[in-house]
Amino acid sequence: MLYNNGEKPMGFRSQNLSGPGRLITLEGIDGTGKTTQINSLASAIRKQGISVLKLREPGGTVIGEAIRQILLDNRHTGMCNESEMLLFAAARAQLVREVIRPALAVGTWVICDRFLDSTLAYQGYGRGVDLEVIERINNLAVGNCRPDRTVLLDLSPEAALERLGKRPEKTDRLDIEGRMFMERVREGYLAIAADEPQRFIVVDAGQPAKALAQEVFSKIWEGLSI
Amino acid sequence: MLYNNGEKPMGFRSQNLSGPGRLITLEGIDGTGKTTQINSLASAIRKQGISVLKLREPGGTVIGEAIRQILLDNRHTGMCNESEMLLFAAARAQLVREVIRPALAVGTWVICDRFLDSTLAYQGYGRGVDLEVIERINNLAVGNCRPDRTVLLDLSPEAALERLGKRPEKTDRLDIEGRMFMERVREGYLAIAADEPQRFIVVDAGQPAKALAQEVFSKIWEGLSI
Repeated sequence: MLYNNGEKPMGFRSQNLSGPGRLITLEGIDGTGKTTQINSLASAIRKQGISVLKLREPGGTVIGEAIRQILLDNRHTGMCNESEMLLFAAARAQLVREVIRPALAVGTWVICDRFLDSTLAYQGYGRGVDLEVIERINNLAVGNCRPDRTVLLDLSPEAALERLGKRPEKTDRLDIEGRMFMERVREGYLAIAADEPQRFIVVDAGQPAKALAQEVFSKIWEGLSI
Repeated sequence: MLYNNGEKPMGFRSQNLSGPGRLITLEGIDGTGKTTQINSLASAIRKQGISVLKLREPGGTVIGEAIRQILLDNRHTGMCNESEMLLFAAARAQLVREVIRPALAVGTWVICDRFLDSTLAYQGYGRGVDLEVIERINNLAVGNCRPDRTVLLDLSPEAALERLGKRPEKTDRLDIEGRMFMERVREGYLAIAADEPQRFIVVDAGQPAKALAQEVFSKIWEGLSI
């Protein structure tokens, strides 16, 4: 399913239904600095003369943003795990068809703040929803539109929470989670990354942002610019 | 999975995880008079001294009603099939856990305006989404909370559209559908009903509302009051 092996010739890539662009996703628990890294990565790729589109999940479309509002609404604390997962998948399905596929088709590189792996890590490893069920729903949501590379910003929950503490405005429903939950999600991410070493770039998110940005870009560029 | 065989003794039913209440769903294309029949059926069952809860899909919970707004919004004409189906499933998952299961557990009979079969008929038969995929997502959404009886209000698209024409205020996104689509949905419903004759009560929705209400109640009561 994944066409992310740097050794594959261009001819093979051209058969990839996700088109000539590249889909790069950034993952990690909240507080790992995804937004900063996405902005840096987008700038660095644009400097290579490539068109870049930044997206966030859930959201990125009118329908997706409406779904995002439901997910983040503090009044919705009674939301069941199944409903939460299905809402994320609904937003993702729309994003893939309305935005990602058309962008990739014209050669744009798409950088997405969270994607498939967030559902596996949060709903699966974090909340205990069956991983195979999540895989099936993800398959329905994205079809063959899979990330070429995924950057996992790895950081301990302690360090992440300390960073989040500096942003007190962020206290929506999804942020109200304990440290144990964050630890399960982090371990989940590391397990997913270990399963797909060719797709994943795991980096230490505790290092200074500038050095991290350089590491992320060089590893992305090395694998995807061929 | 289905505990709807009238011949089964009460002892068996008491093991039904959906509890001592009964879950009755009404299905059919728009314009078949579901709302009228649900009101009549609820009244008739209440006259037997039974507590009745009426629900509608998508909706019935705060989260579900928010999802309903997304589904019905005329600005969302670009919604993909997958996203639509996942949104219905998300609303359903919430409804089952927040409202239906607790109601059934205390002996209330629940009458739901649309449920599982709507997704099969509309997204599956109507729009061509793979039926097995829908079944899996439905399984995730409702678990073992299955209807004891489902009333299918059967009517030709022509007759249904004529009735809908009398209600010009109803022109939301889901109503903007052609006759061919309605025909596929109707045929889908009939196929689903043929697969589960013990659960389904198929009635001619073209007859006068009062006669129809009597037929629906007597068939429901005959099968579920034991």
